[in-house]
Amino acid sequence: MEMIYSSPRVVVFVGGVGGAKLAYGLSRVLPPEQLTVIVNVADDFWHYGLRICPDLDTIMYTLSNLVDPVNGWGIADDTTAMLKSMQRYGEETWFTLKDQDLATHLLRTYWLHEGVPLTEITQRLASRLGITCSLLPVTDDPIMTVVHTEEHGSLEFQEYFVKYRWQPRVQSLEYRGATDARMTSEVRRALEDADVILFGPSNPWLSIAPIVAVPGIADLIKSRNIPRVAVTPIVDGRAVKGPAAKIMDELGLEISAQTVLEFYSDLLNGFIADVRDDATITNLVQTQNLHMPRYLLKSFDTMMGDAQSKIMLSQKILETIEGWTL
Amino acid sequence: MEMIYSSPRVVVFVGGVGGAKLAYGLSRVLPPEQLTVIVNVADDFWHYGLRICPDLDTIMYTLSNLVDPVNGWGIADDTTAMLKSMQRYGEETWFTLKDQDLATHLLRTYWLHEGVPLTEITQRLASRLGITCSLLPVTDDPIMTVVHTEEHGSLEFQEYFVKYRWQPRVQSLEYRGATDARMTSEVRRALEDADVILFGPSNPWLSIAPIVAVPGIADLIKSRNIPRVAVTPIVDGRAVKGPAAKIMDELGLEISAQTVLEFYSDLLNGFIADVRDDATITNLVQTQNLHMPRYLLKSFDTMMGDAQSKIMLSQKILETIEGWTL
Repeated sequence: MEMIYSSPRVVVFVGGVGGAKLAYGLSRVLPPEQLTVIVNVADDFWHYGLRICPDLDTIMYTLSNLVDPVNGWGIADDTTAMLKSMQRYGEETWFTLKDQDLATHLLRTYWLHEGVPLTEITQRLASRLGITCSLLPVTDDPIMTVVHTEEHGSLEFQEYFVKYRWQPRVQSLEYRGATDARMTSEVRRALEDADVILFGPSNPWLSIAPIVAVPGIADLIKSRNIPRVAVTPIVDGRAVKGPAAKIMDELGLEISAQTVLEFYSDLLNGFIADVRDDATITNLVQTQNLHMPRYLLKSFDTMMGDAQSKIMLSQKILETIEGWTL
Repeated sequence: MEMIYSSPRVVVFVGGVGGAKLAYGLSRVLPPEQLTVIVNVADDFWHYGLRICPDLDTIMYTLSNLVDPVNGWGIADDTTAMLKSMQRYGEETWFTLKDQDLATHLLRTYWLHEGVPLTEITQRLASRLGITCSLLPVTDDPIMTVVHTEEHGSLEFQEYFVKYRWQPRVQSLEYRGATDARMTSEVRRALEDADVILFGPSNPWLSIAPIVAVPGIADLIKSRNIPRVAVTPIVDGRAVKGPAAKIMDELGLEISAQTVLEFYSDLLNGFIADVRDDATITNLVQTQNLHMPRYLLKSFDTMMGDAQSKIMLSQKILETIEGWTL
């Protein structure tokens, strides 16, 4: 008699680079029909009349092996001839919109103007790049993260993030449009059918918060009696990449895995910390009264420098979850 | 006492590459405020959601010295990274939309969507590239040349011209939208104020016909008792560039300067043939009963291979007109 190993249906929530790495690993260990990647859209913006979706693009380029391995976003070996020309026209060029990348924005914008929903557009682009798992924006409606700062007042997200290189001090964050945004039927179905819900090592305040702010998402997640596990974006008291630690500090929060855990609160019943934070884990178990097997608390090497480490972490997470009784 | 030489106010009608060369020469011998270049828009089209105006761009890149000297259109040393990416997405890439060139279309399209008229957009783009003479689309309204062919039925102009490399046999030409298009006030004023009206060595059927089909233009030109002179696009029984001769043949016309003269008819009171066609000139004077000084008929070397030859031809034309009494 043959044993048939059946993979779980996994939904993973992601923002940009960190989440993309985990999604990549998962896409290499799960059959494509078992994996759904749900992506933040609150970084999306209009630039030169083009609709740019940085997180969707990062995931898409990562899953299709087109991604620039140094930056973790954009297309490898891309060029800046269009930008050079924009500069000649006297236009601002602080957002690095490269030439190969432009085709993505041109097609997306063209289809948006035709009335095609972002979900369908994303599916078209991804499938044409050979991506076989499901890649979904959390909503087809626009959400825009607004960063309120002292120095520059209210900044649109990309101004804060790219133009000012996340240097202005954050006073508060606003996810404009989130409460009016509608969860898509594709996202609802994926969450209803999931055997496992994961949160990538993405920035809780910039990537995850605007996802779970969409009405119905948080309740639907919490209603599922399945493993719901986040991977920490904080390792050894620092953000692996980007402004997570800086923002935590500016919002008056301790820069620690514990703060991330508190952010997620009852969305989770499991958490993956980094091996470098084993002491933190012990501390978490004690202070949060999180005792196995009710709460899954593990530490792995979460640094995903190369393809192999992304696959390894994904395998370890799925194996751990498989052997765990809620 | 100082003699002050006052340049004439010149309007030149142009299509693409040939017209651009004459406009370039004129721009080097006239003060910028004395030169208005009025451009065909019937080649304009939408591609990947961008508004592309091939003739306006060719003139603009030529006047700003950005033009690719080999093709006579596009920007020199431009690259095709975006197109490579479009190909990866499985899109058609028969229209060579290069990377630096994209900035022009992106800005134009963005402003069009904002409601800015093409005249104002053209002025913005041209002035940012350092162009100081006046560059005007003949109308802000869309006109589209449709080429009726036997092999492929009705083709949009760029399909005919680029996708099928002007190989299909032309049955007839249609300037869709022309009779509903409105001459702009800027074009009207330039024509009313002109001391000289020129027609570049552009394709009469593809570049000039859709201009003079705009209501009021032809009547206004004919009403002006000033030199109105065309430069031949036919030299030695051949088109200097492009499909002019082929189309003449397909429309059942003789490929000659005389046919061009008949096309223009009473829009002109002067014509510049090429020195290679001196016999034609003699013939024209006889058959058309065109006798100086009523009708200006001259032959020059109209081949404009380098900057110097463009300037030379422009100077000769203006000098000849200056010495001519209508």
